[in-house]
Amino acid sequence: MGSGFRIALIQLAVGANKIENLTRAAKLVKEAASKGAKLISLPECCNSPYGNDYFPQYAEPITGESIQAFSKMAADNKIYLIAGSIPEKDGEKLFNTSTIFNPKGEMINKYRKMHLFDIDIPGKITFQESKTLSPGNDITVVETPFCKFGVGICYDLRFPEIAQIMAKKSCHLLIYPGAFNMTTGPAHWELLARMRALDNQLYVATVSPARDNDASYIAWGHSTLCSPWGEVKAVAGADETIIYGDIDLDYINQIRNQIPISKQRRHDIYEVKEK
Amino acid sequence: MGSGFRIALIQLAVGANKIENLTRAAKLVKEAASKGAKLISLPECCNSPYGNDYFPQYAEPITGESIQAFSKMAADNKIYLIAGSIPEKDGEKLFNTSTIFNPKGEMINKYRKMHLFDIDIPGKITFQESKTLSPGNDITVVETPFCKFGVGICYDLRFPEIAQIMAKKSCHLLIYPGAFNMTTGPAHWELLARMRALDNQLYVATVSPARDNDASYIAWGHSTLCSPWGEVKAVAGADETIIYGDIDLDYINQIRNQIPISKQRRHDIYEVKEK
Repeated sequence: MGSGFRIALIQLAVGANKIENLTRAAKLVKEAASKGAKLISLPECCNSPYGNDYFPQYAEPITGESIQAFSKMAADNKIYLIAGSIPEKDGEKLFNTSTIFNPKGEMINKYRKMHLFDIDIPGKITFQESKTLSPGNDITVVETPFCKFGVGICYDLRFPEIAQIMAKKSCHLLIYPGAFNMTTGPAHWELLARMRALDNQLYVATVSPARDNDASYIAWGHSTLCSPWGEVKAVAGADETIIYGDIDLDYINQIRNQIPISKQRRHDIYEVKEK
Repeated sequence: MGSGFRIALIQLAVGANKIENLTRAAKLVKEAASKGAKLISLPECCNSPYGNDYFPQYAEPITGESIQAFSKMAADNKIYLIAGSIPEKDGEKLFNTSTIFNPKGEMINKYRKMHLFDIDIPGKITFQESKTLSPGNDITVVETPFCKFGVGICYDLRFPEIAQIMAKKSCHLLIYPGAFNMTTGPAHWELLARMRALDNQLYVATVSPARDNDASYIAWGHSTLCSPWGEVKAVAGADETIIYGDIDLDYINQIRNQIPISKQRRHDIYEVKEK
């Protein structure tokens, strides 16, 4: 292996038909793999429309049909798949869960969204994920032959602590499947991605569903890949598309040597700690 | 008092003559006060050119002539003054120190730069503040009748932890006198200010010297005030100027209620701690 590899972010157009969503996802994963992507991510809520009315209806156990479809996408194309997220049912509880598959199609890890999206901007956007979902409790870092990456989901982007902890665990890349909206999207989506990248000197990928102006929750789109220098390297518009980028581990090391903030932190004065 | 007040950021043209620098500063502080500013900040290294050759030569004890001049500026104009920074001599050690004065001209606090600027971007910018300076060890938060604010200096901006801790100490505003350069300035100066503001839902002010193309270290300028929504509210160009902005405490509360991240942090999972 060299110091780099290709990543693909699939800005999937997600509709009301679960099977159709999974079929479209499989087609686009195949296309991305055929173009050399080794790590491929789907968006948040990639098998279901986003919304409290949909989560209970679309939720399935971690052995369900969506998981089986993701496993097949990974194995058929021999790629690592970050399967965006799906509403997961575990007993009486629902979670917003990202599952991660290796090129054999084995589910090697999963991440349950830790910070639920409860905001209230009057006249703009009000949402309470906690009406239907429960939060996860585990920070998730995945090791592959290409790189080490961490996973967060959407609103998790607003909490620098988990990015700081994933960086301390030696991640080269943070992947955030997410669906910001038409208020917070233009205001904060790119800014948050660039800054997590710059602060932690690693790549950050955000992966949104395509925009559907008829949906009850309208996603901003704009899936983005940011470099450890805080630059946007690739960005989508609003429509369904795949964006590609190269993750260059040598470049990460170069930046970290040039501006050696991780060595310069004042651990005698402060610390970001996982409990 | 209402919920807001006016702040002024003085992008001073700093030259080789210390007395002249202080005289110009006094003139601009008077101008800013006459326009209603209650809190006024000068830039990093406001009595001396920036550079390891200058720090020892311009350094003075905390009772020195610059401090006396700052005290007079605050008292004469009845304002709170964040006196940018100066090279401070304490025994055998030198520090990059920001002093803070109340409207009576009393020095009510000081902050010594905690993260020294040691970076090496070959062919672009190489600097080692640690050749001449020692780091400070105390996070500094100041309470005034208008607001509570924290102070960092320049390279401190790259370390989210001190901003996070100052926010936890109930700051409404973080003030960073700083002098980014022609490489890191365009790449990161505004991004860092916007993001510290958004992550901590408070105002952030960065205060640079004006650009001097003949200096050994060329400052980027672009003193900036960012809102708790992560927007740039006021920004300078490269030349000497004063920029003004309103700090609105009601707006801070509004943003914090709309997107209540400080209540939603997962203190059961992580924590940013001061030691």
